[in-house]
Amino acid sequence: MNAAPIALTLGDPCGIGPEITLRAWAARNAAGLSPFVALGDVAAYTQSAQALGLDIPVAAVADMGEGATRFAQALPVLPLRNAVSNRPGHPDPANAPAILESIERAVTLTRAGEASCVATCPIAKSALYEAGFRHPGHTEFLASLAAAPGEAPPRSVMMIWSEGLAVVPVTIHIALADVPGALTRELIVETARIVDRDLRERFGVSSPRIAVAGLNPHAGEAGAMGREEIAIVAPAIAELRAAGIDTRGPFPADTMFHARARAGYDAALCMYHDQALIPIKTIAFDDGVNVTLGLPFLRVSPDHGTAFDIAGKGIARADSLIAALRLGSRLAAQARSAA
Amino acid sequence: MNAAPIALTLGDPCGIGPEITLRAWAARNAAGLSPFVALGDVAAYTQSAQALGLDIPVAAVADMGEGATRFAQALPVLPLRNAVSNRPGHPDPANAPAILESIERAVTLTRAGEASCVATCPIAKSALYEAGFRHPGHTEFLASLAAAPGEAPPRSVMMIWSEGLAVVPVTIHIALADVPGALTRELIVETARIVDRDLRERFGVSSPRIAVAGLNPHAGEAGAMGREEIAIVAPAIAELRAAGIDTRGPFPADTMFHARARAGYDAALCMYHDQALIPIKTIAFDDGVNVTLGLPFLRVSPDHGTAFDIAGKGIARADSLIAALRLGSRLAAQARSAA
Repeated sequence: MNAAPIALTLGDPCGIGPEITLRAWAARNAAGLSPFVALGDVAAYTQSAQALGLDIPVAAVADMGEGATRFAQALPVLPLRNAVSNRPGHPDPANAPAILESIERAVTLTRAGEASCVATCPIAKSALYEAGFRHPGHTEFLASLAAAPGEAPPRSVMMIWSEGLAVVPVTIHIALADVPGALTRELIVETARIVDRDLRERFGVSSPRIAVAGLNPHAGEAGAMGREEIAIVAPAIAELRAAGIDTRGPFPADTMFHARARAGYDAALCMYHDQALIPIKTIAFDDGVNVTLGLPFLRVSPDHGTAFDIAGKGIARADSLIAALRLGSRLAAQARSAA
Repeated sequence: MNAAPIALTLGDPCGIGPEITLRAWAARNAAGLSPFVALGDVAAYTQSAQALGLDIPVAAVADMGEGATRFAQALPVLPLRNAVSNRPGHPDPANAPAILESIERAVTLTRAGEASCVATCPIAKSALYEAGFRHPGHTEFLASLAAAPGEAPPRSVMMIWSEGLAVVPVTIHIALADVPGALTRELIVETARIVDRDLRERFGVSSPRIAVAGLNPHAGEAGAMGREEIAIVAPAIAELRAAGIDTRGPFPADTMFHARARAGYDAALCMYHDQALIPIKTIAFDDGVNVTLGLPFLRVSPDHGTAFDIAGKGIARADSLIAALRLGSRLAAQARSAA
């Protein structure tokens, strides 16, 4: 059975998205990438390639199947209905319809089985908000696309993955002062359940081991420096273990991420953004992958933003997108072999 | 000019202190260690060596000079007045007088120039509290020894150092929920001033570069996720820069610690314990060194505790103590060359 290609979204065309898309295609053989199809604008990618001095052929394709076939010879592009203008470094609200169309089509194609997975290039929320976008972020928009009309979107979970370390922050983009109040046993339990299920079903880990960090220094040292471990984290772990989910901890966060410790678990559940992001970006800054768990389709993304400041300068690194596309291929193959 | 030896304290003799002291001495040539003298009990070290099957001669010495001379042939021990009993894994309040005497003598010898530096083995506060110890920790006790009678102790600053990364937490052993309230511009400024001065005077860095982390995810993203960067951290940096101290930031903490970022500064000033300890323990778990800045003498320490659970089992790693002794030698040599 042949693999369906990955649907790669446009992202903000004024950021580094077009450049890293072109560079990822150029690296397809060296990096062992499965076919992907860019959902965007042929002229815009062609113009980006020329501006960057990259000799990369771009081919309009009619569907994902044709994209898979042509991938070896050219960057296959499935054209959008909405127009794209790409002045690097100058985000333009006029691109919002094309940016959103690209994401919606990637989800539709993936849910229909024509694409194996959604890979997203970075977007800038501010440019979308000006055009009427009302979701808190990329992931929430994707979750809304996973829901039937009128239905609540499924709970999504952000994992940052690299070879050797996968981390999941339980709370994410909130002020540090708001973290203790946002942390509940239910939130930890729900998050761990999704991580456990997706590690099994999407990553093919037969017996996932989840290590849970404490919130406080030394995991609170038996209540001497904060009681959230006693009141919230430990009861969540007990509930999960009673349900047969292999969770361990709460561990002092500073001793969880060195090489010997990392070998002991499949994912680390962290209580807040930097507790999760500091260790993975310390050891895998260029090739971390943002994976969205909990949705009825697979979504991977590079672990960086639009980088408007360096767009069009020819210095953007495609490492993280390449890592995302490799992981997407691997998880899609895993899903096929399990089916 | 010959270097004075390092004064190495007893620490809790029921923890791994005696074992790592013996192992550090055994590694003295391979690790290129300068002479150190253990301030403890000859019989206790001898008994530890025998119990661990280590063929290490232990020699009582009358003073630091004799210790330096005999270091090549035996572990030199300057005996204490107070008795030491060392049942591994069973802390005993009866050891408190010897533990404290060892620390006090190390400070006295270092301040008198007979020792180049204080290196401390780990202590357990609970065993000392039972014996009437009234300081919040090891470092505060050392600071009190640096003050004249009736004088307030100098402000000490904890740095965790390894080759390639040095971190300083501005707040340390407090609950995460208490961090935002404890963070002030004054605290950041005072801490950075001590770090800057000691990097110059003790580490020989002629133009120290200090990178300052934000408190919130993405350093608050211009106030969208917390305002401490705007209200506290950025003003502290401005004040420091106006005073000629090269501080930069506030930076998003998750992007500060990868290899390319680390090359851009000499020390990272972090807002809380785990923000500092997670990155350094992720990359230098075994050989991080705890250095106390701000005191009128140099103090280094391994970056771990008494480890009562593995004491006497022959499995304790001396890497961190060895790294501490190496750094102590290096900083003492630096101080001599600057004098």
